[in-house]
Amino acid sequence: MQDAYGALVERFRQLARIDHALTFLNWDQLVMMPPAGNDSRAAAIAELTAMQHELLTAPVVGDLLQAARTQALAAPEQCSLREMERQWQRAVCLPASLVKAQSLAGSQCEHAWRQQRRDNDWQGFVANFREVVRLSREEARLRQAVAADMFATPYDALLDLYCTGDDSAFIGQVFATLKAELPTLLAEVLERRQPAPSLAGTYPPAAQKTLSEEMMRCLGFDFSAGRLDVSMHPFSTGDRGDHRITTGFREDDFAGALQATAHETGHAGYEAGLPRQWDGLPVGQARNLCLHESQSLLFENQLFLARPFVAFLTPMIHKHLVESRHFSEEQLWRALTRVGPSLIRIEADEVTYPLHVVLRFEIEKALINAEIEPDDIPELWDLKMRQYLGLSTAGNFRDGCLQDIHWTDGSFGYFPSYTMGALNAAQLFAAIRRHFPDWREALARGDVAFVRQWLGEQVWSKGSTMESQDIMRQATGEGTNPGYFLDHLRARYLHQQY
Amino acid sequence: MQDAYGALVERFRQLARIDHALTFLNWDQLVMMPPAGNDSRAAAIAELTAMQHELLTAPVVGDLLQAARTQALAAPEQCSLREMERQWQRAVCLPASLVKAQSLAGSQCEHAWRQQRRDNDWQGFVANFREVVRLSREEARLRQAVAADMFATPYDALLDLYCTGDDSAFIGQVFATLKAELPTLLAEVLERRQPAPSLAGTYPPAAQKTLSEEMMRCLGFDFSAGRLDVSMHPFSTGDRGDHRITTGFREDDFAGALQATAHETGHAGYEAGLPRQWDGLPVGQARNLCLHESQSLLFENQLFLARPFVAFLTPMIHKHLVESRHFSEEQLWRALTRVGPSLIRIEADEVTYPLHVVLRFEIEKALINAEIEPDDIPELWDLKMRQYLGLSTAGNFRDGCLQDIHWTDGSFGYFPSYTMGALNAAQLFAAIRRHFPDWREALARGDVAFVRQWLGEQVWSKGSTMESQDIMRQATGEGTNPGYFLDHLRARYLHQQY
Repeated sequence: MQDAYGALVERFRQLARIDHALTFLNWDQLVMMPPAGNDSRAAAIAELTAMQHELLTAPVVGDLLQAARTQALAAPEQCSLREMERQWQRAVCLPASLVKAQSLAGSQCEHAWRQQRRDNDWQGFVANFREVVRLSREEARLRQAVAADMFATPYDALLDLYCTGDDSAFIGQVFATLKAELPTLLAEVLERRQPAPSLAGTYPPAAQKTLSEEMMRCLGFDFSAGRLDVSMHPFSTGDRGDHRITTGFREDDFAGALQATAHETGHAGYEAGLPRQWDGLPVGQARNLCLHESQSLLFENQLFLARPFVAFLTPMIHKHLVESRHFSEEQLWRALTRVGPSLIRIEADEVTYPLHVVLRFEIEKALINAEIEPDDIPELWDLKMRQYLGLSTAGNFRDGCLQDIHWTDGSFGYFPSYTMGALNAAQLFAAIRRHFPDWREALARGDVAFVRQWLGEQVWSKGSTMESQDIMRQATGEGTNPGYFLDHLRARYLHQQY
Repeated sequence: MQDAYGALVERFRQLARIDHALTFLNWDQLVMMPPAGNDSRAAAIAELTAMQHELLTAPVVGDLLQAARTQALAAPEQCSLREMERQWQRAVCLPASLVKAQSLAGSQCEHAWRQQRRDNDWQGFVANFREVVRLSREEARLRQAVAADMFATPYDALLDLYCTGDDSAFIGQVFATLKAELPTLLAEVLERRQPAPSLAGTYPPAAQKTLSEEMMRCLGFDFSAGRLDVSMHPFSTGDRGDHRITTGFREDDFAGALQATAHETGHAGYEAGLPRQWDGLPVGQARNLCLHESQSLLFENQLFLARPFVAFLTPMIHKHLVESRHFSEEQLWRALTRVGPSLIRIEADEVTYPLHVVLRFEIEKALINAEIEPDDIPELWDLKMRQYLGLSTAGNFRDGCLQDIHWTDGSFGYFPSYTMGALNAAQLFAAIRRHFPDWREALARGDVAFVRQWLGEQVWSKGSTMESQDIMRQATGEGTNPGYFLDHLRARYLHQQY
């Protein structure tokens, strides 16, 4: 093989073009498609997914990878080859029969869960869930087997799919600090914070959309290369030159959709800033979800919720939403930064959210490593909720261990990225504050160009050319350190600094 | 090969699933995509198109077709096999080098034409166009060669791509009647018709969209299985359960968009009514463009423009568009059915439109059969415009032979379907009127269910199981006969009957 690496580049770019099709078919399904279109859409998506899998796992790819390893490649191409191997290995290590069994068990468990959650029916759920766990353990075992030197435990092999490069030992150590410090910090915050007003009112969705778009422009979103639309749950997707985010507007509340828009704008920024020269190749993709979520949470928690930015936004909110004019900037900021322990993760504030994640991380790690069984979950959940947040979920499965969709289809290893993202966001923004001492004044003018430029250089343009912790070290001087996040919470919630 | 036909079914259904992806990627490109997304979209579309071509032209398909011919198949499956062979033959008979050369020459000619039309630059245009014609003649020759018994002339081999089953001898004979009768009929109409009012005003696009949607519901469009959106030029596309039409709203005119909506609703009705049991197979597709256009023109000319339906629509138009309230039902109908010779085909009324098409049919037939050369076109165009419509285009290429996009990329054989569609529409609606003597009362109530049901049984559900003229014969008692169309024009424009 003359140029095995060149042949791999062509193969992976072909896969990326199919991925483009899947990306926009999926977007359309969630945003545009009328309900009766689902069958033909599902069949088309399954077909393209199968073609993609076949192209990636064809024997020639293995041969090309082996040949490319002996080629004289420059450092960037070696890096690119490493990421190709990573994706290829992830695709070839599972037998088709397992993938199919997981897909079936996952769909069945997820589908039934939608009703079982409403019915508070843990027994019904666990009957399906045992099979999902059994198959995920098998998946973890197989993924660990092909790269035994990389994964210390079976759980690490699943975690790697989302938190690539950040292993469970490292995450566990970082989370231990949060577990030790957050409950005390939370108690202090609750003691000191003044009560926040309710923002309830009537806010026409069309006006909320115009407001969201105006804010997105301030946050640097380029509408000649992207869109904002409406879907049930907010998400972000796209490809080069076409970055699409969604949010969901509720007539009685504008804050949720606006905050979600800021969050998704961060995700879209990362995607738009990925290195153009690596378009279509694995090395050109976002590094991992711990960094992806750090970009969305930086936009959400560090920019959108910052007091100077809320001050900037207040007249804009007043302009578009008549009923919001009752609320002063001070009241808006207090409402947006309300803190309090609650049972539901997705409704949690930035102080309590990590404790929800630590709980899930501990349980899913033990579950996949076969230290506990599915039937042990409700008791453990209640115990940890009481320890971390002082709330009980005994008998309340609906608002306890049945609240999330992730485990129902076997997505174990996803949860930690939410909190790793929050920590990385605080640490990156601390570095930005050191570089730009005038950050408060800039935010108060609605100017975030300095943030986008710095993140573009330090994170977005790196793609997957470096490991996650190396990107953090190069950008901030150290790997993920929960101290910055705790400092941020103290500054905002104890000392009202921003 | 045990079940060659079964293997072909699986192959063609796979092609249909890729076609689903292409359909919605194209829709998105024209309706949703931000401008910067074009490069990645074009690359993805090219990739899927190439994969599709490869799957259809793979040697195994030829072997399977040969084997299936010897299988004992029931009549419907034989029919299905015949349509598979038709599609396969169309795909394999051209060498890749010709297809590529055509794609390049077509893009170049079309791209330059956009400016050349504005500049009235025939000389610049013809320099590119000679190559497009040369390649189309080569295409026609190759398509004719593989099925010499089917195609009497090279032009017939191109015509077949759009008007499948209706050859140029038949169409020429039908058009000869129009050529003989229409100019006289037009003169009579112009003498008798009262002048029509202008509908100019200010009509907010959002209100026009609501009006269009309300009318579409009356015309039987199912919004749980389709959408209406906005694009530069109206079109209709989709797949099972998801039929999407578009229109373009102008603030100073509502009639154009509303009429286009009725037209596209007809196309969508045909697609939605195709036989479910043949989904994904060639035999399940719409028969040809002469029938497709007959459905859109039946909805546009026979239903939407019918006086009783305009009477039904008038209060609905008044309700949504405040400024339209100046116009009585009588005035609306006169404005919608205005007649007059003009230079531009797409702005023509239903009386003069066929003459624009006859002119193009005669020129493109002679061009592809090498009886004339590209340089002869302007003089011929002017001559025929003077003969048929009494207007000259001498020196005015912009509003003459440079007005259409079709020839710029080599789409020769498309034009006749517009007028064959108009004739079929009149003939089918004459049959409907015979079957439902109360048709006027039903249209006046906005009830078109009887039309949809009859078309569903007689046309839509046939898919490609029969040839075009056999469908017409079974539905109306005879093949396409221009007499029904001429009778329709006389009834509406001379006798003001509907």
